[in-house]
Amino acid sequence: MEIVRYDVDKEADPATLVYTFGGAEAVASIRPGTVVSTWTADCYGGRVRSESDMATQVTDTRYINPQTGPFHIEGAEPGDTIAVHFCSITPSVDWGVSTTIPLFGALTATPYTAMLHEPLPERTWIYDLDVSARVVRYRALDSDLTIDLPMEPMHGTVGVAPPLGEARSSLTPGSWGGNMDTPEMRAGTTCYLGVNVPGALLSLGDGHARQGEGETCGVAVETAMDTVFAVELIKGVPTPWPRLEDDTFIMSTGSARPLEDAFRISHADLVQWICDGLGLSPMDAYQLVSQTALTPVANVCDSNYTVVGKVAKSHLPGFTGYAGVHDRLRTLAASIR
Amino acid sequence: MEIVRYDVDKEADPATLVYTFGGAEAVASIRPGTVVSTWTADCYGGRVRSESDMATQVTDTRYINPQTGPFHIEGAEPGDTIAVHFCSITPSVDWGVSTTIPLFGALTATPYTAMLHEPLPERTWIYDLDVSARVVRYRALDSDLTIDLPMEPMHGTVGVAPPLGEARSSLTPGSWGGNMDTPEMRAGTTCYLGVNVPGALLSLGDGHARQGEGETCGVAVETAMDTVFAVELIKGVPTPWPRLEDDTFIMSTGSARPLEDAFRISHADLVQWICDGLGLSPMDAYQLVSQTALTPVANVCDSNYTVVGKVAKSHLPGFTGYAGVHDRLRTLAASIR
Amino acid sequence: MEIVRYDVDKEADPATLVYTFGGAEAVASIRPGTVVSTWTADCYGGRVRSESDMATQVTDTRYINPQTGPFHIEGAEPGDTIAVHFCSITPSVDWGVSTTIPLFGALTATPYTAMLHEPLPERTWIYDLDVSARVVRYRALDSDLTIDLPMEPMHGTVGVAPPLGEARSSLTPGSWGGNMDTPEMRAGTTCYLGVNVPGALLSLGDGHARQGEGETCGVAVETAMDTVFAVELIKGVPTPWPRLEDDTFIMSTGSARPLEDAFRISHADLVQWICDGLGLSPMDAYQLVSQTALTPVANVCDSNYTVVGKVAKSHLPGFTGYAGVHDRLRTLAASIR
Amino acid sequence: MEIVRYDVDKEADPATLVYTFGGAEAVASIRPGTVVSTWTADCYGGRVRSESDMATQVTDTRYINPQTGPFHIEGAEPGDTIAVHFCSITPSVDWGVSTTIPLFGALTATPYTAMLHEPLPERTWIYDLDVSARVVRYRALDSDLTIDLPMEPMHGTVGVAPPLGEARSSLTPGSWGGNMDTPEMRAGTTCYLGVNVPGALLSLGDGHARQGEGETCGVAVETAMDTVFAVELIKGVPTPWPRLEDDTFIMSTGSARPLEDAFRISHADLVQWICDGLGLSPMDAYQLVSQTALTPVANVCDSNYTVVGKVAKSHLPGFTGYAGVHDRLRTLAASIR
Repeated sequence: MEIVRYDVDKEADPATLVYTFGGAEAVASIRPGTVVSTWTADCYGGRVRSESDMATQVTDTRYINPQTGPFHIEGAEPGDTIAVHFCSITPSVDWGVSTTIPLFGALTATPYTAMLHEPLPERTWIYDLDVSARVVRYRALDSDLTIDLPMEPMHGTVGVAPPLGEARSSLTPGSWGGNMDTPEMRAGTTCYLGVNVPGALLSLGDGHARQGEGETCGVAVETAMDTVFAVELIKGVPTPWPRLEDDTFIMSTGSARPLEDAFRISHADLVQWICDGLGLSPMDAYQLVSQTALTPVANVCDSNYTVVGKVAKSHLPGFTGYAGVHDRLRTLAASIR
Repeated sequence: MEIVRYDVDKEADPATLVYTFGGAEAVASIRPGTVVSTWTADCYGGRVRSESDMATQVTDTRYINPQTGPFHIEGAEPGDTIAVHFCSITPSVDWGVSTTIPLFGALTATPYTAMLHEPLPERTWIYDLDVSARVVRYRALDSDLTIDLPMEPMHGTVGVAPPLGEARSSLTPGSWGGNMDTPEMRAGTTCYLGVNVPGALLSLGDGHARQGEGETCGVAVETAMDTVFAVELIKGVPTPWPRLEDDTFIMSTGSARPLEDAFRISHADLVQWICDGLGLSPMDAYQLVSQTALTPVANVCDSNYTVVGKVAKSHLPGFTGYAGVHDRLRTLAASIR
Repeated sequence: MEIVRYDVDKEADPATLVYTFGGAEAVASIRPGTVVSTWTADCYGGRVRSESDMATQVTDTRYINPQTGPFHIEGAEPGDTIAVHFCSITPSVDWGVSTTIPLFGALTATPYTAMLHEPLPERTWIYDLDVSARVVRYRALDSDLTIDLPMEPMHGTVGVAPPLGEARSSLTPGSWGGNMDTPEMRAGTTCYLGVNVPGALLSLGDGHARQGEGETCGVAVETAMDTVFAVELIKGVPTPWPRLEDDTFIMSTGSARPLEDAFRISHADLVQWICDGLGLSPMDAYQLVSQTALTPVANVCDSNYTVVGKVAKSHLPGFTGYAGVHDRLRTLAASIR
Repeated sequence: MEIVRYDVDKEADPATLVYTFGGAEAVASIRPGTVVSTWTADCYGGRVRSESDMATQVTDTRYINPQTGPFHIEGAEPGDTIAVHFCSITPSVDWGVSTTIPLFGALTATPYTAMLHEPLPERTWIYDLDVSARVVRYRALDSDLTIDLPMEPMHGTVGVAPPLGEARSSLTPGSWGGNMDTPEMRAGTTCYLGVNVPGALLSLGDGHARQGEGETCGVAVETAMDTVFAVELIKGVPTPWPRLEDDTFIMSTGSARPLEDAFRISHADLVQWICDGLGLSPMDAYQLVSQTALTPVANVCDSNYTVVGKVAKSHLPGFTGYAGVHDRLRTLAASIR
């Protein structure tokens, strides 16, 4: 086992950072089987720090959601899959931030769901983070209420370079991963991503101290993260849409609009995955998914919306995904704690 | 406390049963505070009983999803809310059935998502139900696999007469409730429904021994149910979209197409409910929902799709919905076991 | 040929009028082949008459869009089609009205596309109608501009009772017709509607002096209409979704959400209709539609959205729809002018 | 006036051509006011030539829809607008091709609208083009029918580099233009595109001899084109979404999913454009658009769907868009015929 440290310049000029999947040169090369320890900036690059900082004023909106990477995964070729297992995801600071952004979010007009309304107010909430107590403290702006919520750290954005020569904003999720914004992307989860270009070009960022399902206002409790992840390469096995696995569930993601298409992608992929894994006919797998799937919405704010379909492994006797990569990476992760 | 038995003729001619919300005369009158014990047929009226019974052949498709009711709730007027608490929901037979239906379901062309494909195959799965062990046994049709799944009984359909003089098929969910098909409609849950016509005209049916979130193929593990529920009347409090409450969560439902509109309805209602319950400003409540909501998809197969947004009461210190009706009904339910 | 006058009480209590398709008794019986001369109220029942009348204040929102009918078509049975040919549609008054309505329209949050915005302002525009000059005069409220637009009278709402025992609001379009709000429903057009209940129960209303495609703000230039239409019955031929025909085009409508489903319905129906009419294979008809269809949006404001797909008859050599009913009704209509 | 010839190597290796907006170096620099004469390949690069050529077999699906360009427009900066006027668009060969492609099109399951159906059959239709007679000949594959249709040449794809560092496939439309697939992009039309990067980086391609509105099967009558266009630069005027203008209409496009969002974008932009051009209040412009817009669907097959909202200039007395650029380019174009 190899542990590699990849350091990020926390004071770098925002214009020099990476804001796309595809379209950027690899910053480092990683051998499959490696554990990487690194850091990710918050989605605002640390520039929204107080309740009086308005995101649209203190940031350059061309430079939102910087990614750490991309990493070249040695030997990865189109048609392969990489597995990214999150060993740990820990806030590196004692505060997080959420905001509303004019014309962004699920319960507002947007540039796509175009309407004649004035934008909703732009506001900023600062959360206190207590990593040892695993507490995230919400503080209302317009009244005195504070509420301690459980810390549940996750990465909103994990992905590889897309196909067709595209470079996609780190604000967008799709078949390449990207800004899926699902709380399932937590420590203990393995993320499977299909490879579209040589080296895959893996990036990650957008740490959230916690997030509701749907990320309704468009912004989670954003924070910088110290993250340790392990990477494996699965040769000759394609993965059309990102899949996740943890000790309890297998999960398929879909990212599209309208939201039912995100649902359809995730559930059609679950059907296929379970066909393959249990040797069921498509109709039998369709039936089994229909009675066993849990289906948490991930985000309804990004330029594609994301849905997760998941089935408990306890309902899939004999099923093993990707020849047991998750279990091996889980063991590996345990060994380095 | 009053316990009322409402008996259903299990051998009735299907053409004489009730298949709409609105458009039917009340079968009984219920005083608020009453506990009702009754029975509901399965969605096929018990006519699909073996793997060789095809739903489109053994049933008359005009008569799908019969409802028990409607019940006239004494004193209910437009602008009020009724609370329906499920004391118990128990399969009354030892089998359940699921099927595919041509051009119905989430992963197939439908009359609305019209395409040029041939329909998927029509198939029927029969499940063994073991009420005492709380087990639902899946049996693959095309291979030898059987899987024991946990029994989690629920009602797919609960609702009142809609507004505007409409009568709506029991296959459709909407602001009046109806065919929401959410697994949250289980014993221990209170369902709040806004009243649109005098007496509310409450009906229920469509029992499921279990169901995946999304009801992907369009049909759950359908079964007849012995159900006990309590009804309360909340005067002068409107409820625009159905809300649910159990001991742990408050929940808002939205039923619409596209699926993001179902999401928007449920989350906008959560924001409003929490504004009211905690005295928060709308933007503060929007923020709190964004970080705390869980968002399970309910169905993506009916003529409207349904999403549930839910927030743990533990994240809402001091919140009480509907002046504590759920707690009172919970206590009442406990007293009759 | 028989010409029948059906008179409407223009001073009737709004609560006594008909606001649903289905759920109302027939007001008259019509023999196929009859020409009917009648009148329809505007969607507000004439109660919004000046720029200071706000629709939500001067009307009871339970009583919007009254229909003339329903008419029992003699001999019509489920599985048949009725053809309704519009001989003439003429404003019966010299004014029309349009308004905005809070939370209704395409460019605003609505109860379905639920958001946290305040509603847009409610405003009322009164149009001068000059029937002889066929002019509709727009007058800006906030500046001095007036614009004379061509009068293009049409019915927003034409339909029959829906299937499954439903009664549907006259504000909603669907497979039964209803509030399709397409400018194609003009004099010279024949509308084909599938029959769901004995007698079909045809109603119509919602006259528009003109309307943009999409009916963007949700309200056209609403006016009362003197309308003459002819009805024919086509036995044993079902029509799943409303079709239109004029001298130049055949047209299929779809009404659904999201809007792409309305598109899919209309285009799949065009493919089917052309398969049948030209003896083409489905793939050849799909190809022909792909290169020849015009596709005007009808409405993006109602509870279902409507799209019209149309193909010029000049591109369909040898095609005759419904055995030439349109041509016969056209001739009939010409004979009574 | 300057006329510039830009020649394309018609025999180039497909892998060397340009398939994205953004992500490619300019091939030439164009001074505003220039007329450019060039050629565009058909979407298959000329490789699908007979009814037995299946697109998925004779092409490399990474290299679909090659673009001519990108052209650097001198002086164009973010925040400016370029105007591209089509002087002439003429098929350069005497044949066109259309196909079905598995899992692509409006009436089929796709990778996004994921379903369990088998793909529809892949077929190829070859059209005879007669440029002098302006005829496109459809020939059914499965029966003997041929139909002569009017030639109406257009470009499916016209656009500039997108913002945020993205490179987008030439198969996708969006705010940068791209694969909008609207028949309005014909000779005589001026297309306004907002500039996102220095030089704008204009490309065009995807000629269609004709196309139905919606491009239902996903493929028009594809053909190589000889095209002459003029370019102007409008400094300091942004254009958020592509607009079109011809002698009769102003038009706004929206490209998004679901289709109602494409509608909303185009109609909200029309409202804004007319506010600006006539000095109307937003509500007065909303009203005027509601009664005057025509709304042809452009495509319902691409990764975003496109809707065009258009208003006749005759309904907009005193309106001039972009200070009369269209009229000047129209005159320029007339001078070179």
